Formats: sequence, C-alpha cells, structure tokens
Amino acid sequence: MSNHDYHLIIIGGGPAGLTAGIYAARAMLDAVLLEKGAQGGQVMTTDWIDNYPGFPKGVSGFDLAEQMEAQAKRFDLQVKMATVTKMDLVGPTKTIFLEDGSSLTCRAVLIATGARPNQLGIPGEAQLTGRGVSYCATCDAPFYKGKSVAVIGGGNSAVQEAIYLTKFADKVFVVHRRDSLRATKIVQEKAFANDKIEFILDTVPTEVVGDESGVTGLGLQNTKTEETSSLKLDGVFVLIGIRPNMEMLPLDQLDNDQGFIHTNTEMETSQAGVFAAGDIIYKNFRQVANAVGEGCTAALSAEEYLENNE
Amino acid sequence: MSNHDYHLIIIGGGPAGLTAGIYAARAMLDAVLLEKGAQGGQVMTTDWIDNYPGFPKGVSGFDLAEQMEAQAKRFDLQVKMATVTKMDLVGPTKTIFLEDGSSLTCRAVLIATGARPNQLGIPGEAQLTGRGVSYCATCDAPFYKGKSVAVIGGGNSAVQEAIYLTKFADKVFVVHRRDSLRATKIVQEKAFANDKIEFILDTVPTEVVGDESGVTGLGLQNTKTEETSSLKLDGVFVLIGIRPNMEMLPLDQLDNDQGFIHTNTEMETSQAGVFAAGDIIYKNFRQVANAVGEGCTAALSAEEYLENNE
Repeated sequence: MSNHDYHLIIIGGGPAGLTAGIYAARAMLDAVLLEKGAQGGQVMTTDWIDNYPGFPKGVSGFDLAEQMEAQAKRFDLQVKMATVTKMDLVGPTKTIFLEDGSSLTCRAVLIATGARPNQLGIPGEAQLTGRGVSYCATCDAPFYKGKSVAVIGGGNSAVQEAIYLTKFADKVFVVHRRDSLRATKIVQEKAFANDKIEFILDTVPTEVVGDESGVTGLGLQNTKTEETSSLKLDGVFVLIGIRPNMEMLPLDQLDNDQGFIHTNTEMETSQAGVFAAGDIIYKNFRQVANAVGEGCTAALSAEEYLENNE
Repeated sequence: MSNHDYHLIIIGGGPAGLTAGIYAARAMLDAVLLEKGAQGGQVMTTDWIDNYPGFPKGVSGFDLAEQMEAQAKRFDLQVKMATVTKMDLVGPTKTIFLEDGSSLTCRAVLIATGARPNQLGIPGEAQLTGRGVSYCATCDAPFYKGKSVAVIGGGNSAVQEAIYLTKFADKVFVVHRRDSLRATKIVQEKAFANDKIEFILDTVPTEVVGDESGVTGLGLQNTKTEETSSLKLDGVFVLIGIRPNMEMLPLDQLDNDQGFIHTNTEMETSQAGVFAAGDIIYKNFRQVANAVGEGCTAALSAEEYLENNE
C-alpha cells in the first residue's frame, strides 16, 4: 500500500477493538482499525444486552456497537474495511498482509479478532438467533424466567450452564448426541440431582421451530433408532464450544491455547509490541464488559510500549 | 448482625463493585454490596468521562454511576451503607467486621474498595476538582487542546504525563518541590528536549486560583528563597501518586504491593474465594472501562468458585 508506518494497527471492530480505537485515537496515536465486515463483531447480532454497565434498561447489541463506533469516530479513529490474511509480528516492525495483496506496517499490533460459537447448522437456527436461540447462558438465562428451554451439548460448560438455567427456567432439557455426557462426574451428578433438568441422550436437534414471536420448539432425532420427535420450548441454548477467529494469526509467534492467545493482566502477549483483547484471548468468561476493559488496558499498554520504544 | 451466610459480599460501590453487583444479582446470587458513602466511588466526582465506551458524547461521572446503580437495583442487588473496619478472609467462611460492631459472614468476597489520588491540600484544589484540577492525564488531557497547564510532581509518571500533555496543550509547566526530578534519566531527557515543557523546580504550589468558569491560575512559592509568584493557567494536573483504600484489608492474607492487591487475569487473589477488581488491584492503568471489565470477570469467577465449592 504505502511506506507509511502506523503506530498501532488494531485488528477487529467488536467491543474490544472499538474501545482500543477510542483510547488510541483520543491519545492521538497514528492508529488504524481494520475490520473485515461491519463494525461491532458478534455483539451486532446480539438482540439485547442486559448487563453492560451504564444502560439500566439494557441496550441492543446493534445500538451499543453503533454508539461505540460513533465515539471512536468522534476522536477521528481511522477505520479501514480490509481482510487480514497473514501477519508477521516478530521484531520492531510488524507487517499485516491483506487479502488484496497489499500490506501495512506498524510498530504495535492489537489483536481483537474475536471468536465465534460453534453452530448446529440446522434449519431455523440462524433465523432465530437473538429471538430464542442463544449461545451464552450468562448473557441470556435471566430472560427465561418460568419458561422451558433446551441446552444442546454434553460438555462441562453445557451441563454447568444447564444447572445455571434452572435458577430461571422451569424446565431445562439437555440434548446430547452421545449416550453419555462428557462433563466431569461431579458436574453430572449435580445435574442428575436437579429435577428441573431432563436428559435426552443419543439425540440430535434437526430444526429450530419458531414464529414471529421467537422460538416455539425443537425438532429432534434419535441417532440410534432414527426416530423423530419434537419439544415445545421457549429457548434453545447451543453450547457446543467456541472457536477463536485465528485464521490470520501467526500462532507460531504467539503463546496460545488452541488459538486463544495468552495475555498477562496488562494485555501483553508473549511477543513484544503485540497486545490482545476480547474474545480471542485465553480466558474463562466472554462478555462485552470485560472485552471493553481489556481493549482499554491493551490500548494503554500499547501506548506505553510505543512511548518506551521510540 | 445475623447468622445469615451470604454467597458473596462486594466491598465498594464504584464502577468495579457496581458491575460485580449487576452480574451477581442478575445471576441470583445471595449477594450484598457494602458501600460506606454514596455509591459510585471516585467516578462520582469526575466531571466528564469521554472514554467510557457506549457514550459517544461522553457522560458525567455522576450520571454514569447513577445509571450503573439503577441497573444493579433493577436486578434487586442488596446495597447496605456500612463501613468495613476489618476482615478475615482465610478459610471457607469469610468474616467482614463493620464499624457498628456487627459482622457479616460469606463464602466469597469481592474487594473493590478503590484508590484515591494524593492531593496537594491547598486552597482551591478541592473546589476546582473536575473544573480544571485533574488527577488523571489519560482521562483529561484531550480537554486542554491549545491551552496552558501545570503538572505538579517530579516522578516518572508525572514527567511522562507532562510529555503526553504536550500533544494537546500549548504549554506545560512542571512544578516540582525539589531541585531535581525523580523520573528516570531517559524520561527526563525526553522532557528536557520538548520545548512545550518548562520546569519550575524548588517550588511548591500554594493555591489553585479560579472562578465560575474553572481554573485560571496557580500560586507558587520557591522553597529556597520563599519568593512567591503565580502562573496563568487553564488546568492543573496533580500527579503525586495514588493510595489504595486498604485500611480495612488484611494485607497479611493477600499478596499485595504496598496495598495494591495482586490478581491473575481471572481476578482471583492469592486467597481462595477472594476476588478483587478496580483501582485497588495492582495494575498500570486505572480507568472506568477496565474497572468495569474487572468487576465483570471477578463476579463471574466468584460465581464459578461458589458453584464448585458448594
């Protein structure tokens, strides 16, 4: 592209990246945020966020992302639509390679590429996401007080979230494709002892059913007998894992765990001059609030790094 | 007080504590937030916050704290006005001792007691805080484009912040009571080379002068000659250190650095069942955005701890 050497390139326009952008632009760094789609990341498709502090009645994911973007633009953050294909992060000058064959160089990189939940890939799922299909029990369980929901998955977090859901829902079905759960024994026993939970094993969901009001049911098929059945439901929690958006990351240059990047509390990665924030980092809990906090810290750490390495 | 054993006691009602409260209450934990003064902590006295993501035009500290409190109350968070004097955090049951002689017990504690900047204690300082007197350059420097400001202090962060301020202000006076700075040589040299910075050594501020529009000047006295003088200014940055609100903390039970509590990335302290978030933790950057992120993570970690230690 040009010989211009940016101070900081931020990769990803979700809450972590936009927060970093707000901080970097306000501090008058020569920064650019690269985003491949619309700004906002996964949050854009989140119907309603009840627990991002500062919005007492909650806020739609779309509105929150728009507000953050407007804030970044008020401080004149440069935003470029560009798909990153590769990067070289070793040494004082970092190179970011783009899909159009060009490349950008910079002195610091902030990785905020996010993650995406694994999807079932069945009819109705995408259409009803945010209207009864959820990938996050922490985020959405309280919307299901007194209702019936299904959890799809049999791992530790699926079964733990099923137990958590019983605080709100009257009935929680756990649908798992195998004949036994993958969750640890102690978690399983807790779930078995809970009378709000009913297990449906050897079974896969075939279709999420709904209407304009949202999810109304779930089609099922037994993997052994091939028999089909259906459940009347108000919500479906798909908890079959999360994948880091790591395709463009040089994982041999960054300490990571299956693509989730290790950071310290100041959001430094194992590579000098490279910072990470949001869902792409290795952590237990993926929320807008902590993505924002990490984006803030990562940008300030990057600023300090640039100051000390002029 | 009672024999009631809380799940979680949150100590402190600033952004970190209120965020933790939002998460804990929404997850239906039996949680109580203890706050000694009005909710909101230091943020309450912050005139204008430009970089908390989601508020494109900025928001007053008072309004933001009120919004967070309203949100916590919507989820029925219990809030008690109480001054904590002492705590015992060792073992599965934690005890929190209150000024009125009573005590509370719980299974997990979240420390969000905050910190406070050291103040000069001179006339005009308190009255003009938020109207030209600031304790945070990252927060407020961009408000001083084309203006004249003074930095009070001679340590590393004071001199670094003075350099940062020259990105915005036309003139930055660094006022320091000794005849040489405490900042490292490399930082000093960078500041000496910057023609927007003027050093006033052997000098203490005696009064912040202002009117209804804000700060207009600063009274000074030379510590050797006792001569007095004054500067015409638009802002005064008091950067003489920050103190943790640690008086009630059992520092022998928690890894800490001069009262700032060490945490890992999941906001766990060195003591099982004890979590910390916000300005009280050991970290480089103290902002509302990362306090909120840490409050979120700390509450979710506490919830997981409680789940695993039933």
